[in-house]
Amino acid sequence: MHKTALFLAAALLACAAHAAAPKPAKPARSAADVLKDSPTSDWRALDPDNTLLMDLAAGQVIIELAPRFAPAHAANIRALAHGGYWDGLAIVRVQDNFVTQWGDPDGDDAAKARPLPAGASPKLPAEFSVPIERIGKSAGFTKLPDVDGWAPRAGFAQGFPVAADPRTGQAWLAHCYGMVGAGRSDAVDSSNGTELYVVIGHAPRGLDLNITVVGRVLKGMELLSALPRGTGAMGFYDKPEQRVGIQHVRLLADVPVAERPALQVLKTDSTTWQQLLDARRFRGGWYVHSPAHVDICSAGVPTRPAP
Amino acid sequence: MHKTALFLAAALLACAAHAAAPKPAKPARSAADVLKDSPTSDWRALDPDNTLLMDLAAGQVIIELAPRFAPAHAANIRALAHGGYWDGLAIVRVQDNFVTQWGDPDGDDAAKARPLPAGASPKLPAEFSVPIERIGKSAGFTKLPDVDGWAPRAGFAQGFPVAADPRTGQAWLAHCYGMVGAGRSDAVDSSNGTELYVVIGHAPRGLDLNITVVGRVLKGMELLSALPRGTGAMGFYDKPEQRVGIQHVRLLADVPVAERPALQVLKTDSTTWQQLLDARRFRGGWYVHSPAHVDICSAGVPTRPAP
Repeated sequence: MHKTALFLAAALLACAAHAAAPKPAKPARSAADVLKDSPTSDWRALDPDNTLLMDLAAGQVIIELAPRFAPAHAANIRALAHGGYWDGLAIVRVQDNFVTQWGDPDGDDAAKARPLPAGASPKLPAEFSVPIERIGKSAGFTKLPDVDGWAPRAGFAQGFPVAADPRTGQAWLAHCYGMVGAGRSDAVDSSNGTELYVVIGHAPRGLDLNITVVGRVLKGMELLSALPRGTGAMGFYDKPEQRVGIQHVRLLADVPVAERPALQVLKTDSTTWQQLLDARRFRGGWYVHSPAHVDICSAGVPTRPAP
Repeated sequence: MHKTALFLAAALLACAAHAAAPKPAKPARSAADVLKDSPTSDWRALDPDNTLLMDLAAGQVIIELAPRFAPAHAANIRALAHGGYWDGLAIVRVQDNFVTQWGDPDGDDAAKARPLPAGASPKLPAEFSVPIERIGKSAGFTKLPDVDGWAPRAGFAQGFPVAADPRTGQAWLAHCYGMVGAGRSDAVDSSNGTELYVVIGHAPRGLDLNITVVGRVLKGMELLSALPRGTGAMGFYDKPEQRVGIQHVRLLADVPVAERPALQVLKTDSTTWQQLLDARRFRGGWYVHSPAHVDICSAGVPTRPAP
C-alpha cells in the first residue's frame, strides 16, 4: 500500500464519473513532488482569530474555525476559549466510526455546570447552512467536478469541504473525517459551542444540515481518533475516570507569538490543490487501477510546517 | 446527536439522488424497531469455515471471510489460521484515517520469518475482482439504487459492500470501514494472506481494484481502530515494544462448539435490510433533514447475539 508516482489528467465533468475514465495525457509528478514543488503563494498561515489550540496530556490539537459558515458559533467559541471555558474539562464520548466529543461533564446539572465566561452566550441560532452566494468567488470556492451522492454540488472553500444545493439556495459544511461540530439536543437552536465533536470515522454525511459544523482539525487528529471507545450509550464514557482531561483550549490570538505553532495550510483555490486532486484520481506506482474519482471527504487538505 | 424515530420511504432510483427527495409516504418504525421486529429468517449464523476469531489481550475480534470474492486467499487464510500462523505475531501498523495492519514483524527477514504451516501457500494469484456474474441472484446481490461516485453499480452481497462495472464485467469488494484486505508489495500477486489490514477511517475507495479484499470485521472493530497510531513511515510502529501482540487467530471450525460466539448477521437480501437502508435515507426524531441517500460504506450490516 505504498504511494509512489501519480498522474495528472483533466478533471472529469460532473455526473461523468461513471463514464470511461479519460487516460492521463502524460505521466506527471507524484503527490509528494506536487507538494515539494508548490509555490509559497499556494500556502497560507494560521488565522489567529480562527484557530484553537487544544492541549491534552498526549499533545496538541489544532482546530480551525469556519466563521463564514457558522459566524455566531465561531464568535462564541472564540469567547469561550478566550475565557478559558474548556480548561480542565474533558473528552466525554468516543463512539467508534462516528465521533469524539468534549465539553462539561456536568453540563446538564445547573448547580455544577461551569459558568460561561464573559462575552459568551448561552443561546445561539442554528447555523446548519448559509446562502449559496456565500461560497462564491470571495470564499475561493472550487467546485469538485466529481459526482457526490449526498448533494448536487460539492467542493472546497477556504480549506473546508462544502456541499450545496442550487434548488434550495443553501450551502453547508460536510461531515468529513476531522470536521468539528457543535453538539445539540432536540431543539435545532440548542447548541452554543460549549460541547463540540469531531468526526473519527467514515463521513456521517447524514448529519449534514442537521447540526452546526464549526470547523475542522488541522493537526493532532490521532490524539482524538485513537482514544478508547466509550462503553456507555452512544459511546459516552461510563465512569468519570475514563474521561480524557483537557488541559487548555486557547484562541491562537491569545497565545504569545513565540509560542504559536508555525503551521501552514494549503489554499484550496490553488493550482497545487487541483494537482493533488488529480494525483488522487489518477494513480501510478504501486497502483494498477485509477478510480478517476475523488470525493470531498477522501481528499484531506494538507498542512505543513512553515518553511 | 441522538437517533430516534425514523421514516421509511420508497427507494430512490439510481442517478436520482440529486432530484428532489420523495417525501416518505408515512411515518414508519425506527431502525431500532425494525431490528427488534425482524423475523428470525432474516438473520444467519456465523459460517464456521469462513469466520476467524482473533484474540488480543483487550478482547476478541470476529472476522468473516469472503470466499466468493477471494477464494484462493480465503482458502490460504483458513490454512494459516488452522496452523496457528498468527499466534504470537503482532499488529505492526496503525495509520490514522487509513488502516491497521497485522502479520509477522520479521516477515521480510527470511532467516527469522515464521514458516508457513502445512497447507498454506506462499504465493497466490491477485484477486482484485471477480466476474460480475458472481454477484447475481446466487450471491443474494441487492443493488443499491443510490448513486455511487466510485463505480457504476454498488450494492451488497452476503453482507459485503460490493461495487461493479458492467462495462468491464467485473465486481469487487469495496474498501469500507471494517473491510479486511491482504497487504501486497509492488507485484500484484505478492499477497498471500499472511499480512492483513483493516480499514479504520473514511473509506479509501481508491484502493478498490488495487489489492485483494478478503473479508470484514463483524465484531470488535474498536479493538483495532482505537490503537495508538504508529509514528513511523505509513504508520508502522517504530519500536517493537509498541506493537500489539496477537494471542491467537483461530478458524471458527477449529473452535469447540461450546466456545463459539453466538453471533448472528443480518442477511442483506432481506426485507429488514432494505427497511434499515430506508431508515437511514429518511430520518425522524432528532433529525430535521433527511439525506434521501445512503452509500455502501455508510450503512454497516448489523450483527446481534443469537436470541
